[in-house]
Amino acid sequence: MRALVFDDNGLSFQPRHPDPPPRLGDTLVRVRQAGVCSTDLEITKGYMGFRGVLGHEFVGDVVDSPDKNLVGKRVVGEINVVCGRCDLCVSGLSTHCRNRSVLGILNHDGAFADHVRLPAVNLHALPAAVDDDMAVFVEPLAAAYQVIKQVPMDAGRGSGGEGGRGRRWVTVLGDGRLGLLVAQVLREAGAAVRVIGKHPDKLALCERWGIRSRPLADIVARHDQDVVVDCTGSATGFELAMQIVRPRGTIVLKSTVADGKPLNLAPLVIDEVNVVGSRCGPFREAIRALAEGRIDVASLIHRRVRLDQGVQAMELAGRPGALKVLLTMD
Amino acid sequence: MRALVFDDNGLSFQPRHPDPPPRLGDTLVRVRQAGVCSTDLEITKGYMGFRGVLGHEFVGDVVDSPDKNLVGKRVVGEINVVCGRCDLCVSGLSTHCRNRSVLGILNHDGAFADHVRLPAVNLHALPAAVDDDMAVFVEPLAAAYQVIKQVPMDAGRGSGGEGGRGRRWVTVLGDGRLGLLVAQVLREAGAAVRVIGKHPDKLALCERWGIRSRPLADIVARHDQDVVVDCTGSATGFELAMQIVRPRGTIVLKSTVADGKPLNLAPLVIDEVNVVGSRCGPFREAIRALAEGRIDVASLIHRRVRLDQGVQAMELAGRPGALKVLLTMD
Repeated sequence: MRALVFDDNGLSFQPRHPDPPPRLGDTLVRVRQAGVCSTDLEITKGYMGFRGVLGHEFVGDVVDSPDKNLVGKRVVGEINVVCGRCDLCVSGLSTHCRNRSVLGILNHDGAFADHVRLPAVNLHALPAAVDDDMAVFVEPLAAAYQVIKQVPMDAGRGSGGEGGRGRRWVTVLGDGRLGLLVAQVLREAGAAVRVIGKHPDKLALCERWGIRSRPLADIVARHDQDVVVDCTGSATGFELAMQIVRPRGTIVLKSTVADGKPLNLAPLVIDEVNVVGSRCGPFREAIRALAEGRIDVASLIHRRVRLDQGVQAMELAGRPGALKVLLTMD
Repeated sequence: MRALVFDDNGLSFQPRHPDPPPRLGDTLVRVRQAGVCSTDLEITKGYMGFRGVLGHEFVGDVVDSPDKNLVGKRVVGEINVVCGRCDLCVSGLSTHCRNRSVLGILNHDGAFADHVRLPAVNLHALPAAVDDDMAVFVEPLAAAYQVIKQVPMDAGRGSGGEGGRGRRWVTVLGDGRLGLLVAQVLREAGAAVRVIGKHPDKLALCERWGIRSRPLADIVARHDQDVVVDCTGSATGFELAMQIVRPRGTIVLKSTVADGKPLNLAPLVIDEVNVVGSRCGPFREAIRALAEGRIDVASLIHRRVRLDQGVQAMELAGRPGALKVLLTMD
């Protein structure tokens, strides 16, 4: 099959890559299209030490499955392949399975290819209202919904015994792919959201959605935000987050980057800040929100590129200000 | 008065330092003795940019006060001097007052001196059961109690909807002054506590208290601790904490250090870890615990040094393995 592969020789399009090896119980999916995520770009810089077919945001058709109800269905897939038996799986934390592989990220070939394999339990059949373009956003949108699972937005200062206003003041740092999804989810959850970014066209998009926005250059660190969600995809985002979050506020960390940077965490102690790492989220809620038209993802599509131009597609997705690049398999 | 001062010329004992300037409503305390804290040592490395009389752990006698009930009382003092009017004070977060000064740390001369001034509201009269040696530990012990205020220990995995055992597995990183107080508080709160440290005599002390301990060199990172409290006073403590905390576990950060170090925070995101910065805590609980003999602080006294030998006392407190150095004013 055709595949976009990252290995010791770097990133390459391979027209005759071996099909994913069948594993007992796996379902075979023919990929329709896939989305390029910042994590894919970080992997090519060394993140996770991954080697293999990249890609974890996709929509496709089930070709073969032990679950016969799935065959022929148009599906999206959860990315964590879990054992179901370790202490974390048993305690309800299966996305943190100690024996997991992760689609296109850890020991499991990804979806930038003609075919991908996943356990049937990972797959979600799509309603007709979620078209193929929307479907590619299910995985990152689920990750955005994870933020409000971990930090409820209906509990303002008033409800925490720390009197005052009930609505949470939330800043999303970063106007990229993930930041713009997170901002929409937080707004829908009732927070007073503000997006801080570098790109006038992205900030204009926020305003069109009715979400306040501010250019990064205009920001004065006032230590006044209840919640700051770092979606910068940059190691510098965290330092800014520490400067704008209020004492006893919360920083949600969504970005994973390959590189570290010198950081002094003393502001977390002095301001008794809560930092919440946040990764994968609930697919069902993301599918429902898309089906009901509550989240705009069409505006986030930057370009469509055929799989055989995948190397160029990745380069394009890595440019400052690029939104979602879709890889198409046709 | 005599005072131990840190200024642009470094640390020095000054036999004729000006008395603390009287401010409307302040109470004047004659200091009996004071304790050297890691924060004092970090200040001499540049932390907070403080200049003035060091010291924030003390016991003394009230010489003069607008609160006549306090005069003659033996007291300890809370270190945050707050405005009572800013948004944070009004919302119940006065330890984070936007206009605060902090005894011996921020814009307020400290207690390594014959006299110290604080508002009457900061002072707590001591019961006879808390002797002068115990009293010097009230401030750091209160900071230790703050950990269980922020991360309740009676809620194990079982109560968080993440099934399994009810008792929290907690590791205290660091067998120094603060770590040994935190470990005792956590044990008292019902956690299964383990202390990881470098000093055989400190670890033996833990065993004497019935608290498990392990040498740092023996630690295998198993990502299995519900809570890790970083009391290392070192920028490297946080990296180890990220390796031993379980997915969705909590790291409590108690250490403030002057220097940063290169850090990659990706493990926080991947494991969806919660980081809680923790600073000052409840004096009343610390005083009660000491009065009732529930916390052993006598074993933590390393040496008594007269104030005029304060420079040497600080050097002594900074040596690896040193416990509490007391500065006496007599």
